Amino acid sequence: MSEMIVMGTIALDTIETPFGKVKDVLGGSASYASLAASFFSKPGILSIIGKDFPNKHMEFLNKKGIDTNGITMGDKTFRWQGFYEFDMSEAKTLRTELNALESYKVKVPEHYKDAKYAFLGNIDPELQLEVIKSMKNPELIVMDTMNFWIEHKKDKVLEAIKKSDILVFNDGEARQLFNTPNLVKAANEVLKLNSKAVIIKKGEHGALLFTKDKHFSAPGYPLENIKDPTGCGDSFGGAFTGYLAKTQNLDEKNLRKAIIYGSILASYNAEGFGMEKLHTIKHEDINKRYKEFKDIREF
Amino acid sequence: MSEMIVMGTIALDTIETPFGKVKDVLGGSASYASLAASFFSKPGILSIIGKDFPNKHMEFLNKKGIDTNGITMGDKTFRWQGFYEFDMSEAKTLRTELNALESYKVKVPEHYKDAKYAFLGNIDPELQLEVIKSMKNPELIVMDTMNFWIEHKKDKVLEAIKKSDILVFNDGEARQLFNTPNLVKAANEVLKLNSKAVIIKKGEHGALLFTKDKHFSAPGYPLENIKDPTGCGDSFGGAFTGYLAKTQNLDEKNLRKAIIYGSILASYNAEGFGMEKLHTIKHEDINKRYKEFKDIREF
Repeated sequence: MSEMIVMGTIALDTIETPFGKVKDVLGGSASYASLAASFFSKPGILSIIGKDFPNKHMEFLNKKGIDTNGITMGDKTFRWQGFYEFDMSEAKTLRTELNALESYKVKVPEHYKDAKYAFLGNIDPELQLEVIKSMKNPELIVMDTMNFWIEHKKDKVLEAIKKSDILVFNDGEARQLFNTPNLVKAANEVLKLNSKAVIIKKGEHGALLFTKDKHFSAPGYPLENIKDPTGCGDSFGGAFTGYLAKTQNLDEKNLRKAIIYGSILASYNAEGFGMEKLHTIKHEDINKRYKEFKDIREF
Repeated sequence: MSEMIVMGTIALDTIETPFGKVKDVLGGSASYASLAASFFSKPGILSIIGKDFPNKHMEFLNKKGIDTNGITMGDKTFRWQGFYEFDMSEAKTLRTELNALESYKVKVPEHYKDAKYAFLGNIDPELQLEVIKSMKNPELIVMDTMNFWIEHKKDKVLEAIKKSDILVFNDGEARQLFNTPNLVKAANEVLKLNSKAVIIKKGEHGALLFTKDKHFSAPGYPLENIKDPTGCGDSFGGAFTGYLAKTQNLDEKNLRKAIIYGSILASYNAEGFGMEKLHTIKHEDINKRYKEFKDIREF
């Protein structure tokens, strides 16, 4: 069986930033999240690709111990092309080809259904709900979403939040979903939906965790050279959930640690184009940055 | 003698936010900074007011142990009118009457000149430079600035930075002064100007400290009800410098603590209109929030 499910998109990304350009590299929320999770756990992907998907990417995922049996084969792989301007804060989309993703029907392999942990990356909330339904003994379901789904399928997003345990989204999405500029208020609205916890990702400003009576503020890592922020949020979510799957401990203190591991993987990810940096880092790099995270918030 | 100098503006502010409105209340960088500093030290103000300045404000400052002998009397007090929109992130100016401030010549009382600590709030950098020149034995000069001076007197701002020890400014100003979106790069540019340290205030996202080889990230306090952010940056700077003047310890660890005290006073300040919240808090409130700050970043 797979220890954890990672659901989301697999894409071929073409990305341009002020520091360079890459074409048709492996991308998508499921790719980033499962790679980041693989440092801690054995994730099984749920996603769809096309016949044009390079075999080397599949081999790469398998080599990282990622179960790819839940990847359905469609016609053409989802493609995204975007760029980042000078301030690197926001991806501007140039082209989206949904391709196979458009008619994706989730097929959950039998050996995935006993997984106790899941990270449901940014994808149609109806697909997220199907995965939730398929899980026999879920202990922790973490979900992400994005502005597009909040705008077009808000009811389904809210339903998925209610059926998950932890919502991970960014500050802009938090403000959008609950129509408030105040993140504390937005977080409290999520908790009212019966969530165990809510995590608000703030990019360079770190991440916030809200539970019923506690609050945690994770610092951002001070990166002087950001090459490409694509996939940072997905890396965060995958590593966060993977660390919890590994430690099997859901108390608030351990959620805090998981957030730091999520932040570490996200910070490394921003240092390279596409997934190139996550290809090369080792456990000792993660441990080194964990100590740095301890130091930068000590007083 | 005064333990520390606080230089900046004294204003009569008219402020509107989505939560209410106040007219002609005590404001200005020197007022907020000296009031916040007064919880730790005995500040002496350098500023100018007019004949229309209500005596009760002067009495209030004196009652807080603030030395007002360095306040020059001009014709009319500086007035500012502004409002905050829904997201409360930025003050929009409706009216600025510089009045007496326009022809302000700094007169430093003799008994201020031996002060070892100074917070030079946001004001014309040429005035900041005059105060620096007047100090006989400075141990720590902390300065703030703002976009207006960076735009109109950049050379003088840079000169003041070179002659101060610590620059405290906000993220927008950091990006503007060094023409980079990256705060780590901006901070390194300040350190090249021979600064001991640089602090970047990020509002709800907390504050960053950069020294030659260390980095500290202070969390923002999770405020659900922000009434009026006017003066938060000045309260931060005043409390930061006041705490250092009190403890007379400039090692990096103590700078971190001072930043937390700055953040505490700023967070309380945002909870009331004008200075009303800083009027009422006590040392036990500060200590309580210090413990909360410890807890929200522990992992």
